[in-house]
Amino acid sequence: MAYAFEFVATQTKGISAECLVQVIAKLGKAVGAAGLVGGQAVDLECEGKTDVSVETLDFIHKHKTSALLEASVLSGAVLANATATDLQRLTTYAQNIGLAFQIVDDILDITSTQAELGKTAGKDLDAQKATYPSIWGLEESKKKAQQLVDEAKEALETYGVLALPLQALADFITARTH
Amino acid sequence: MAYAFEFVATQTKGISAECLVQVIAKLGKAVGAAGLVGGQAVDLECEGKTDVSVETLDFIHKHKTSALLEASVLSGAVLANATATDLQRLTTYAQNIGLAFQIVDDILDITSTQAELGKTAGKDLDAQKATYPSIWGLEESKKKAQQLVDEAKEALETYGVLALPLQALADFITARTH
Repeated sequence: MAYAFEFVATQTKGISAECLVQVIAKLGKAVGAAGLVGGQAVDLECEGKTDVSVETLDFIHKHKTSALLEASVLSGAVLANATATDLQRLTTYAQNIGLAFQIVDDILDITSTQAELGKTAGKDLDAQKATYPSIWGLEESKKKAQQLVDEAKEALETYGVLALPLQALADFITARTH
Repeated sequence: MAYAFEFVATQTKGISAECLVQVIAKLGKAVGAAGLVGGQAVDLECEGKTDVSVETLDFIHKHKTSALLEASVLSGAVLANATATDLQRLTTYAQNIGLAFQIVDDILDITSTQAELGKTAGKDLDAQKATYPSIWGLEESKKKAQQLVDEAKEALETYGVLALPLQALADFITARTH
């Protein structure tokens, strides 16, 4: 992990040092207690509990998954000198696809075969882990994931064809089978 | 650890972003496989071995201890816009006190009482750990530590009174009893 920061600091070329420092700050925050580590800690705390609320589940995945997706999306934007409005739109996009990604992950754990998934299917159920389908049911979960992806794509509508690659990535999240 | 990078990136004030990026690169390198992690890995590899050479012991401590001391000393210098010559002198200073610190640590493990040391004395011997005194003997180890500290202080002589705080820190390393 230390090398990741060293790498970003030494190997990012043709970018102002000011932008680079902003990106390093974002990466640090996304990985630390305010992001990945915080989400993972709560996730471990909740293992085996049967009364995990949707709010807690949202907290876990916003931190565990969305924070890193957000950092990835926003780093590119910061390096390209995006405005505050651009960053706001991209934040909405990233948070939505982060949560959608996790919901789809939970759905696939139930509906996918082991061969398709490339990892053990049904392991959330086995571990009695709180998931979106266990709280909302399968159909409602699919609906929510699609809604999040639609909103993510809408947030970038204003960029026209320039937004197509990011919008395609959003679609891939609900379309994927593993 | 991620927060450390975030903190440096967001809380360092009144410094050019260029200098800050250099410091972040140095910190990343000092902590990663080229520094602390690398030294610790070799240290663990060597546990229980009776034929550890002085070269290996030097490698371990240059990476485990000196790399972080070097990063601490050089970060300040970089932030103050030090020249390449300044950085070279400070590198000599830092590497020398890093190694001296470790030699003195090994000596204290043998000569100090538990009360003085604040941690269990004699635990290197118990663990059959290769140390400088186990290779060189106690007197020779003391001589080497003093020599490293003297050279560290000499490297900064040219700065006159401005060097006194760093030179006093070097002296503290050999004078300490715990």
